[in-house]
Order: sequence, then structure tokens, then C-alpha cells
Amino acid sequence: METMRWEGGEFLILDQTKLPGCIEYIRCRDYPEVAEAIRSLSVRGAPAIGAAAAFGLALGAGNLKEKDSREFLAEVEKIAAILSSTRPTAVNLDWALERVISRLKESVPGDPGELTGLMMREAESIYREDLEGNRRMGGFGLELIPAEARILTHCNAGSLATAGYGTALGVIRAAHGAGKKVSVYAGETRPLLQGARLTAWEMVREGIPVTLITDGMAGYLMSLGKVDLVVVGADRVASNGDVANKIGTYGLAVLARYHGIPFYVAAPLSTVDMRLESGSGITIEERNPEEVTGFGGLRVAPEGAGVWNPAFDVTPAGLVSAIITDRGVAWPPYGKSLGELFNSL
Amino acid sequence: METMRWEGGEFLILDQTKLPGCIEYIRCRDYPEVAEAIRSLSVRGAPAIGAAAAFGLALGAGNLKEKDSREFLAEVEKIAAILSSTRPTAVNLDWALERVISRLKESVPGDPGELTGLMMREAESIYREDLEGNRRMGGFGLELIPAEARILTHCNAGSLATAGYGTALGVIRAAHGAGKKVSVYAGETRPLLQGARLTAWEMVREGIPVTLITDGMAGYLMSLGKVDLVVVGADRVASNGDVANKIGTYGLAVLARYHGIPFYVAAPLSTVDMRLESGSGITIEERNPEEVTGFGGLRVAPEGAGVWNPAFDVTPAGLVSAIITDRGVAWPPYGKSLGELFNSL
Repeated sequence: METMRWEGGEFLILDQTKLPGCIEYIRCRDYPEVAEAIRSLSVRGAPAIGAAAAFGLALGAGNLKEKDSREFLAEVEKIAAILSSTRPTAVNLDWALERVISRLKESVPGDPGELTGLMMREAESIYREDLEGNRRMGGFGLELIPAEARILTHCNAGSLATAGYGTALGVIRAAHGAGKKVSVYAGETRPLLQGARLTAWEMVREGIPVTLITDGMAGYLMSLGKVDLVVVGADRVASNGDVANKIGTYGLAVLARYHGIPFYVAAPLSTVDMRLESGSGITIEERNPEEVTGFGGLRVAPEGAGVWNPAFDVTPAGLVSAIITDRGVAWPPYGKSLGELFNSL
Repeated sequence: METMRWEGGEFLILDQTKLPGCIEYIRCRDYPEVAEAIRSLSVRGAPAIGAAAAFGLALGAGNLKEKDSREFLAEVEKIAAILSSTRPTAVNLDWALERVISRLKESVPGDPGELTGLMMREAESIYREDLEGNRRMGGFGLELIPAEARILTHCNAGSLATAGYGTALGVIRAAHGAGKKVSVYAGETRPLLQGARLTAWEMVREGIPVTLITDGMAGYLMSLGKVDLVVVGADRVASNGDVANKIGTYGLAVLARYHGIPFYVAAPLSTVDMRLESGSGITIEERNPEEVTGFGGLRVAPEGAGVWNPAFDVTPAGLVSAIITDRGVAWPPYGKSLGELFNSL
């Protein structure tokens, strides 16, 4: 199942809001359709929205009429700003847009048609490198997985959240592929149920045993000794190792610490924001209250109740046992280990 | 809104599975309808199912044809066994049934018609005493609530879970009534969303500010310093103070401890099972997987995924700051303080 692909000049995005009931692609002919697909979570997961935004930028560039390459660049930058504004927390979005624009700037002045081609190839590189990076990450991560392991994960950090293979689920896939006896507990991840809808679905398709739980069950599950380790993805990692990820991650990290269970984060270096000193600088997106007051379009809460709906939370580095990246495993202190992984690039 | 009431010889149970969208009573003419209402969670909450079962037993007794009071008693005991089997965790169910049967046994031999009358009055006492006990509990509990407090609660331990007023929500009501500035965070409580459907609804009707969150948000909320205390109800408390309550309670207790936030349990002594040494002896009900794979008939998870669906968890006494009962506040060590409260009866 491809998260995104090209077909006859159109950019197709798998509409993940309809999974697992319905497999349907959104056909994008210009960047606003890509922006809307990111905003509405049809495509989600930090690496996937980075790649989608890069393709969206190239798509938008291909539709520009400007003949002068400086005017072309100015218009491309406007499109990038619109794509960047769709969601605030995942750093991969800006990282990918900046990478395409930086490639473009190296070649300005030039013919806009050729420049569009360069941008498209850069977006393709981002996509391909993400897939390759996830596979490498799986290789690094599987070393941390015991021969038999019951693994708790949260939200979806799988092939659907990336160009393919996945970050946290990539590590689980790699361990499974290496013959380790792994089984997965998938937290359903309210409000939007990415664990139930996407992670459980990926695991069932992969033939990896998966058990679905509600988010409130994780602590009790740990207390019964049924979880050997936790592995989650990330939307932004600060240079000190603080991790922004799907709401609920922080609570799992505290529970894991209380029960003496390793808590791992799997994320490519494109998710690490070395410009940020700590997690306190990360903008946490707050989403529509209706995600919380309802369930699959069915309203359950009464009128008149307030709602708090942060899409992410921040887990302090001190609760993270290791960060599995596409360039190796970073151990505490992360300020040092993440810096070394970047220097090795 | 009455959780249960009598109308022309019929026992009416508010169907809580349809709240808040629809206010509808189930009309029970015999005990099997009461048993089904308990099994299906139309009536839920430990004190409420105790009272409903007591009324159901009297209702069933009234329909018996036996003329001999010993045969009558034997039939009543069969009905009690059926009512008792509806749900395993809440101790109030057996407590209330045993209380009615014990009252009956005191008066055997006797006329079955008169015995039924005695049973009905005993059930009414259970109901009335629960309501009175909740109000007393509110009075004891409000002493623990600061003049301004942001209170996190879980599931519904309100008037709907009891004969009226509520246990955890009773404490909040009492504090509000005493002029304290309280506001409530209601965890939605998947899978059946009693927090969103019932607690938020009760608070809105009461004019107490309430903010709904998903269960996974509680830890992050605490980390931001937005929770001053946690108060929950209980389904069974062991003599050492271990607490069985709605799944997710244990995780909240660990998170509260980690953040240095008081964690209170509000429960009448009818919920305390002095025969149990510790929480390890409490049977935890596992419910239908479909509660987790969907909601309200809407399926979200893929076929092929396993499901774990315990309805309750056990919080060790060591994580409980105090237990607010209808006879006073028990402080650690609970083995001693709960015993003293029982001795004061």
C-alpha cells in the first residue's frame, strides 16, 4: 500500500482518514490539494507529510507561469509558506520544503521548466531516502529487540506515516523479519484512532500478531508484566533529545519508567531539529474539539462541555531510553550523541 | 434525573447507554429484565447496580408462586445467584443482595407476601442510605478540596452511578455547593465513554465548568501543571486499600504520583470488601472486544486484530492518597483506618 504515488502527472495521496474501511486516493493536480490533504490528515506522520509537501511544492512550481527564474523562486517560496502553515509540529514539513528550495536556489538563475525538474528530483530523493533510511533504522533498532518481545506502540509510525516501511513499526518489521518472536500491543490513539485504524491494519497485513487496547489500558497492561518495551515514532526531536509525538506518548513514557520498561523513540535525523535547544520550544498543534466530542462522526459528548485537544505532547529526554535513527542509535546524553550522528553525515 | 424509580408497580431503569442523546427508561416487570439492564450497562456504577439488584430481587420475589416460606427463600436465592452473576467486579452487587436475603432469613418462616414487602423495604433502605451516604461523603470530601481546584476525574462516579448525588462527583458537587471554585477535567473513558457521555453531561447540568479530554491526554495535562488533584470512584476496595475501578484509573494514579498530585478515591463502605486481603483477589471483568474495535456500532479496527478489554484495573493502596467514605476519610495505612470506620458503624 503506497502512501503517495504519481500517476499520469497527477500526485495521488492515500486518504488515510478512510482506512481501514476504504482504500481511496486523492488526486492532486496542484499544491492547494496537497496542502488540504496534509491539513485534513489524509496524509499524516512526520516523514510522510515532509515528502508530500516536497512533491506538492514541485507540483505547484510546475503550474507557475513565471518565465523569470527570480520571480519563479519568489512564487515557489509563497507556495512553500502555504504548505508549511498546514501543520505546526512535525519538523519534517519545513525540513523537506527548505531542502527543495535550497536545491532550487543553487540553480537560480535558470529555466523555470528545468528548475521544476530539479525540484521534482529533489522531492523524489527525499521520498527515496526516507524509505532507505527507514530500512536502515530497522536494522539499527532490531538490535535493541530481545529474541521474544511484547512491544507496545502508540499512534501509527508505520509505512503509512512515512515513504514506506515505517519508523517504530519499521523496527518491529525488521525484528519480525530477522526471526524474532515479536508481538505488538497497539494503543488505539484517541481521538483519531490511528492505532486502531492504521497500526492494527498494517500489522494484520504483515502477519505480525497485534492486540488492540484503549489508551487507558496501557498502565494496567504494564503492571501485569505484559510489556517488554515501548517504541514510538516522533514528530520533532529537540537537540537535547526531548520528543514531541502524538498525544499520549508522554503518559506512556512515565508509565514505562515507573515499571522499569525501556522506552524507545524511532525517528530519522530529518525529524531532529538541531536548532531547538529543548522541547519547550516546540509548537503543539491544537485541533478541532469535534475530534474529541465525537467518535467517527457520531457525537457523544453533551453540548456545553469544554474540550482540550492537543494533537501532540512533549516527552522529556530523561524518559527516553534511546533514540533509534537512520544513522544509528543515539543514547543519553542526546545533546552529544545526536550531534555526533549529524556530524557523521 | 433519577437513575431508577418505581412507577405503577414497574421498576424503571434509566438506559444510560443512550445518554446523553436520549433519555429513556427500561420498564422492568420481573428480575430477568433487571439482570439484563445490569449486564448491558444500562445501569452501571457500583452503588447503582447494588440498589438495582436489590430492587430486582424484590421484584422477582413478588412474582413467585411459592406458598411455603422455605421454598420461597430457596427460589429467592436462585434469583439472587442470577442477579449476582451479571457482573463480577463491583462488590456492591453481592453486598446488596446478601443484605436483602439476610433480612428475609430473619423473618422466615412467614407469609411470602409479607416477606416480599420486607425485601422491598430493605431495597428501599439500601437506595435511600446510598443517597444519604453520598451526601455525607461529599461533606467529608470537600475538606480535602482547596478553595480553588482543577480536578481530574475518570469514568462516571456521579449521580448516575449511584442512587443519586454521586461519590467522586458528589465530592465535587459538595465543594462547588460550598462556594469553592472548582473546575473539572473529565477523561472520556474509552471504550464506553462514560466520562464524555455521563460525567460531562452531569457537570454541564450542574453548572460546574467541565473540560473533556481523551484518556491519553491526562499525563500531558498534569505535566503542564493544570491538575490540582484527582478524584475517582471505586467498584471494589480491598481491606488493605487496593482499589478496583474503571480501566485507566491505575495509569492516572501512577501519573498523579509522578507529578506529586493527590489521588483520592471516593466510595461508600458498601464498596469496601473487608473479606479481601488485597486487590489481587478481585475478579476483573473482561468485556466484549467490539467495545474496543468500534463505538456505537461503528467499526474502526480491521478484522484480524486481537483485542484486550478489561473493564477495570487495580490501583495499589500505596498510590492512593486517601479514601473518602460515607463514614469519614480513611488515610494510610488503610488496613487500620478502614477497619476503624467499619467498627464505628
